[in-house]
Amino acid sequence: MTFQFDLLYTDQSSHARAGRWMTPHGIVETPAFMPVGTRASVKGVWPSQLAEVGTQMVLANTYHLALRPGEDVVADMGGLHQFMNWEGPILTDSGGFQVFSLADLRSLDDEKAVFKSHIDGSLLELSPERAVAIQESLGADCIMCLDECPALPATSEKMQAAVDRTTLWAKRCRDAQKRDDQALFGIVQGGIDASMRERSATGLLPLDFPGYAIGGLSVGEPPPEMYRTLDFTVPHLPEDRPRYLMGVGRPIDIIEAVLRGIDLFDCVMPTRNARNAMAFTSQGTVKMRNLKHQRDESPLDPACECPTCTQFSRAYLRHLFISGEMLGPMALSVHNIAYYQRLVRDLRSAIRENRSQEFRSLHLAAQTPDS
Amino acid sequence: MTFQFDLLYTDQSSHARAGRWMTPHGIVETPAFMPVGTRASVKGVWPSQLAEVGTQMVLANTYHLALRPGEDVVADMGGLHQFMNWEGPILTDSGGFQVFSLADLRSLDDEKAVFKSHIDGSLLELSPERAVAIQESLGADCIMCLDECPALPATSEKMQAAVDRTTLWAKRCRDAQKRDDQALFGIVQGGIDASMRERSATGLLPLDFPGYAIGGLSVGEPPPEMYRTLDFTVPHLPEDRPRYLMGVGRPIDIIEAVLRGIDLFDCVMPTRNARNAMAFTSQGTVKMRNLKHQRDESPLDPACECPTCTQFSRAYLRHLFISGEMLGPMALSVHNIAYYQRLVRDLRSAIRENRSQEFRSLHLAAQTPDS
Repeated sequence: MTFQFDLLYTDQSSHARAGRWMTPHGIVETPAFMPVGTRASVKGVWPSQLAEVGTQMVLANTYHLALRPGEDVVADMGGLHQFMNWEGPILTDSGGFQVFSLADLRSLDDEKAVFKSHIDGSLLELSPERAVAIQESLGADCIMCLDECPALPATSEKMQAAVDRTTLWAKRCRDAQKRDDQALFGIVQGGIDASMRERSATGLLPLDFPGYAIGGLSVGEPPPEMYRTLDFTVPHLPEDRPRYLMGVGRPIDIIEAVLRGIDLFDCVMPTRNARNAMAFTSQGTVKMRNLKHQRDESPLDPACECPTCTQFSRAYLRHLFISGEMLGPMALSVHNIAYYQRLVRDLRSAIRENRSQEFRSLHLAAQTPDS
Repeated sequence: MTFQFDLLYTDQSSHARAGRWMTPHGIVETPAFMPVGTRASVKGVWPSQLAEVGTQMVLANTYHLALRPGEDVVADMGGLHQFMNWEGPILTDSGGFQVFSLADLRSLDDEKAVFKSHIDGSLLELSPERAVAIQESLGADCIMCLDECPALPATSEKMQAAVDRTTLWAKRCRDAQKRDDQALFGIVQGGIDASMRERSATGLLPLDFPGYAIGGLSVGEPPPEMYRTLDFTVPHLPEDRPRYLMGVGRPIDIIEAVLRGIDLFDCVMPTRNARNAMAFTSQGTVKMRNLKHQRDESPLDPACECPTCTQFSRAYLRHLFISGEMLGPMALSVHNIAYYQRLVRDLRSAIRENRSQEFRSLHLAAQTPDS
């Protein structure tokens, strides 16, 4: 059995669940957080460091890799795992999100999307069949159906059309799949509207995907709207399949989503914020350029055992950022990923002890204003 | 005994020598190459990786550190070793080279140099006493006298004045030194003129420094001029002290200088060229962006055991550079430093077997045109 999802424990104080997901490239303990390696590299971090700080699975972006170096190059080089030297599980998205958000969309109908590359302006197409074919060439363990993610706010007509197209495309993706060693996930769309989310889930469930993603969130809506949407969306998803909340998010968002029954997360925040000198710590966020760190010999986060916190002082990290040294973003990226991995690890422990609600309270109480 | 330099072997086919230099922070086997950590960080490389690829000693720049974060901050943080988390030996330059090359020099006389910071334009001074005081605050194992390095070509009057000022300043540096756990080196100046170099060495030798540097080379003169200058300069230096050729250089320059009796080197080339996608390999230099690497599954250098060559293909490294990913410069910096460390390690072995001349021939024969 290539894939198997075992639900090990459900917290009695919430909907949070701890599980074990077996993939062709190893086991993922859930809840899990995937650092984002957009172009087959998690920015500023060596693959060995990802593993060192507890990363079990990473995400890579189909749109970017299809454009450069091209999925054929990745396939010729033995697939994504070998290409980027990451032996663990990998997930790729469908490319749809970037086509709608990054590229210049020229036309969109039920058949396909036609868009201009953001790199060289060349005209390209993405259809459900093409999205699956590219992802089969890339060779990730978990791949995504092509979906339509309309910008919010959207009229209900527009949202319903996007939901129905997403369902149509999901069926075509499933029918197009040739490889049996990749778990193809359906993506529930529908914005922040309960009936739309129900319509989307109801359309997808008969297709019997091995896992379901929730898309169209963390696109600018207020966090309470996202939590509310999870409240009415997750109950439609099968208990025995992994649930993936795409592109989320801040530590508190991950906690709130785990409490609502989500298993998988990805977000650029730990690495992007690191490059902007912002660190996540057990006491809240830290702005590394702040003058107050100038002579601070203490580690960034005394609760952290990552290479950055065991090797460098806050004073040194500040100096690296003030001086524009590469090692600043590098060190903070490793730390922030370590922070996220510790967060989900601690959540997994809390769930097994029915402490997930308490975990959220303690997390919120520990946050001090930006320092 | 804090410092001791043991000359272990002199090649019978050249002036090349293998030695062992004991410092307060450990042993340096010579010939040795020091990667440059201008602002207390070797760009793009973790300190642990420096050690992993065989680095024994690193260099940091006094001028840059005095400006930012300030030597007082470094001292308060426990000194350079603790600040940058490098437990091995460190060498700092005097700051003079940057004052003459990088800053806006306002006045210069025998007393001191007055210059404007290249960062914020503030007016600063550097005297021999100040150069030593800053370096004592930074706390490196090996520190440098303040010298005057005139731009080439220089009139003989100008060159002689610079040589004599360098001698005057060297005496004042020696007299200003308070710490006894730092080896203060004198610097021989004199451009590419034999009589000037002799004048400089003759002035410095009575000051009985524990080591001597050769400055004012690798500043744009043709390589044969540099080699010729070494031919007539090195014989003036004491046999029983380490000899340091500042700011050199290309692999062939290091080999040629070792053959002429030089023990210590530093250069930004391995890391700077890495950031520009240029790799040093056992077959010559490689331009990483070249299309020919697009589907090349082989390692950058099959003769290299560094993390880059054991983990990544040429195809992946090219992709990282073409995509602008940080990991490209990071990986190539680690590799290029590994290349330089293997170069001096192999030179040390060759010297013990009287093969240093043969080593040069084999090195030159192995170089293929830029690929």
